[in-house]
Amino acid sequence: MAGFSDPIIAAGVAGLPALYAAGVSPVDVTEAYLDRIERLNPAIKAVVELDAAGARAEARASALRWAAGTPLSPIDGAPIAVKANIAVEGLVHSAGIKAYARNVAPADAACVAQLRAAGAVILGTLNMHEAALGATNDNVFLGRCENPHRAGFTPGGSSGGSAAAVAAGLCAAALGTDTMGSVRLPSSYCGVVGYKPALGAIATDGVTALSWTLDHVGVHARSATDAALVAQACGVDAPATLDGRPLAVLDLDGLVKLEPAVADNFARTLDALTAAGWRIEKLRIDDLDLGALRRAGLLISEVEGGVEHRRALALDPEGFTPELRSLLAWGARQTPAKLAEAYRLLAETWRTIRAVTAPYAGLLTPTTPQHAFAFDGPVPANQADLTALGNVLAAPAFALPAGDADGLPLSLQVIAWTDGAAQALAARLAEALPPATVPEAFR
Amino acid sequence: MAGFSDPIIAAGVAGLPALYAAGVSPVDVTEAYLDRIERLNPAIKAVVELDAAGARAEARASALRWAAGTPLSPIDGAPIAVKANIAVEGLVHSAGIKAYARNVAPADAACVAQLRAAGAVILGTLNMHEAALGATNDNVFLGRCENPHRAGFTPGGSSGGSAAAVAAGLCAAALGTDTMGSVRLPSSYCGVVGYKPALGAIATDGVTALSWTLDHVGVHARSATDAALVAQACGVDAPATLDGRPLAVLDLDGLVKLEPAVADNFARTLDALTAAGWRIEKLRIDDLDLGALRRAGLLISEVEGGVEHRRALALDPEGFTPELRSLLAWGARQTPAKLAEAYRLLAETWRTIRAVTAPYAGLLTPTTPQHAFAFDGPVPANQADLTALGNVLAAPAFALPAGDADGLPLSLQVIAWTDGAAQALAARLAEALPPATVPEAFR
Repeated sequence: MAGFSDPIIAAGVAGLPALYAAGVSPVDVTEAYLDRIERLNPAIKAVVELDAAGARAEARASALRWAAGTPLSPIDGAPIAVKANIAVEGLVHSAGIKAYARNVAPADAACVAQLRAAGAVILGTLNMHEAALGATNDNVFLGRCENPHRAGFTPGGSSGGSAAAVAAGLCAAALGTDTMGSVRLPSSYCGVVGYKPALGAIATDGVTALSWTLDHVGVHARSATDAALVAQACGVDAPATLDGRPLAVLDLDGLVKLEPAVADNFARTLDALTAAGWRIEKLRIDDLDLGALRRAGLLISEVEGGVEHRRALALDPEGFTPELRSLLAWGARQTPAKLAEAYRLLAETWRTIRAVTAPYAGLLTPTTPQHAFAFDGPVPANQADLTALGNVLAAPAFALPAGDADGLPLSLQVIAWTDGAAQALAARLAEALPPATVPEAFR
Repeated sequence: MAGFSDPIIAAGVAGLPALYAAGVSPVDVTEAYLDRIERLNPAIKAVVELDAAGARAEARASALRWAAGTPLSPIDGAPIAVKANIAVEGLVHSAGIKAYARNVAPADAACVAQLRAAGAVILGTLNMHEAALGATNDNVFLGRCENPHRAGFTPGGSSGGSAAAVAAGLCAAALGTDTMGSVRLPSSYCGVVGYKPALGAIATDGVTALSWTLDHVGVHARSATDAALVAQACGVDAPATLDGRPLAVLDLDGLVKLEPAVADNFARTLDALTAAGWRIEKLRIDDLDLGALRRAGLLISEVEGGVEHRRALALDPEGFTPELRSLLAWGARQTPAKLAEAYRLLAETWRTIRAVTAPYAGLLTPTTPQHAFAFDGPVPANQADLTALGNVLAAPAFALPAGDADGLPLSLQVIAWTDGAAQALAARLAEALPPATVPEAFR
């Protein structure tokens, strides 16, 4: 198993209390992460602003609590970093947009406050695709974030910095946001767990909106258990008991073009799950058009994002890239009927899929139709076709590492109906999947 | 107690199996309702199209099943009528719009098919406000539907015919639709139970859309138990066990102007519930603007309704009243940013209220800020301010009869988070409320 050589980093979130019991202090843990950020971050540019002094103070306070036997939660002392569209008091809250370069957050976002209340150590903010509207994380303002598994390759996005930082062991876990797949997609490309709880399960107060219809806050972590612990600290329900219903695998024939390596690996993954005793049934959903759904989600994001940023767009248009300005301007030119039709497609898909999937414990797909690709190659249009489904359904969804193709991670998406069920399912499914590989340069 | 003198009519839905056991046949039940429709409907114009032959055939089949001891469900044999925007095979599917006067439904709506599969007897279709966009049911095409409690008074809407038919004992229960309150509002004015299950809990296939964002199918019945049985036949979950959490009563001060009779009665209702052992806590939600929420819901309905009816509007503009044409044209003139802001208000309200109400078993308000009013008086603008909340929350909500003011019914709204909890809560709360009064002319 190619894991982290430092037991502190290998412990992730859930493994830390055992280290504390063995005499390691939360201060040692935070120092280990700060040291790695200093040494390793320049190669991948995942971390964009660090609060080393604040993190050290929080680590010392956590150490006192553990020594007194009064930790605030199971994640007390865990070093966590957050995407740059989530407000951290005193740090720049840019959402990856140059126009907000001097927008220092006056207060923590609700989810950051919840993490601090649970004792987590907030390390700083992470790279992201500009405005969370895009999936390469080739950000001219914050710098291009690299995939830790291969230089010159995208980590995915929009929460690319979050996934890359977790994969590279620069934090124990990270928060991201997910409007059409922005937590799960980079988790897939970087070989980490991505968990987008149900709509509204983590509050979005203090998070720069892209689309209030589709935005979710989510977690990147090294295991499903770690992700669930961090989500629970942000107010999400704890795991439920599984009820024995079978899993459905969405019949993707004609719906989305999978890369051969993804298709082959997905078939192997289903075989492994079946061998592990899971009942899996193929589910064909007629009239489902994933491309149309993605375009509807994109149109809604362009319109809603344009409303969200309209003041800054008027005051400082040069603070947005021409690409982003053009997307937001396109949204503003639509008729209300066209926008209404986009919302309609979302609402009708929600109704249809909720109805046909009721007999199943969860829905399985690959997380992305491809693995990470080179920055200098073409950007596939269908990157978010499978993840967007989870946003449209407002349902909890996990991306679970599930093998690799020539060293580039592949991933299994699991959509369920309640967060309790999603967490229980993800933890159990992960037992039958190959362990994630730590990128060589970061072990 | 001022109930129906005929025990068959008094039995509602849940009381019918006991009558069958005592020798009454489903055929007798259907004949009793058909006879009442013939005698009593002309005064209120609740029923707009009758399928007497079909109903009699279904009643005979039900009688055979009960005689054989093989009923299809607890509602086998119950005579049910449905709002005119819900397709019933072979009957006109007009949605109360003259442009669709010759639109004979080629097949049943999904919910009607479910009712038939459960053995229900489908009597016919019911009056409604044109296009479900309005709440007086003063329909120039189908005729003005009267409130059974007082001639010249509105039954409310848009499902006015459904509520009036149930109140007048012209059917054992009825289906309606509810976009901003259209099941609960007329149930309030007519003194019957209105139950709008959670968004999507009853399929909307075969139902003329007003707003795919906010549309729900719901049930009008004479008791919470009857309403739950009919909803369950349409696929809604069965009652859950109550978990002992307290109820929240929404602090309406400054949010909506209640008629004095409504405010007084609501205070008495809360006293009665407290005396019956319920824990009720006042909940203040800052920044909640019910008027703005209603205007947002209306704008969305106008835009989405305009998209839904655009072909008919182009082909037969005279088939719509000038009032409806003007509302839909207003929707089509909005900017996408304005429409997006309306969806935003809905999404943000959903997030806020879901979060603050999590510690409560349910949320209580009066169902409407006023009781039924005269057709020749002004139409209050805020009629749906309290019910629209249930649609924005996508949450199950009941209207429960709760006394009267000078013979005009008053109603308690109960919003919960799952249909199982809503049904259990409504049934228990109803025990502490005064029994509904049958309008004198219909006893």
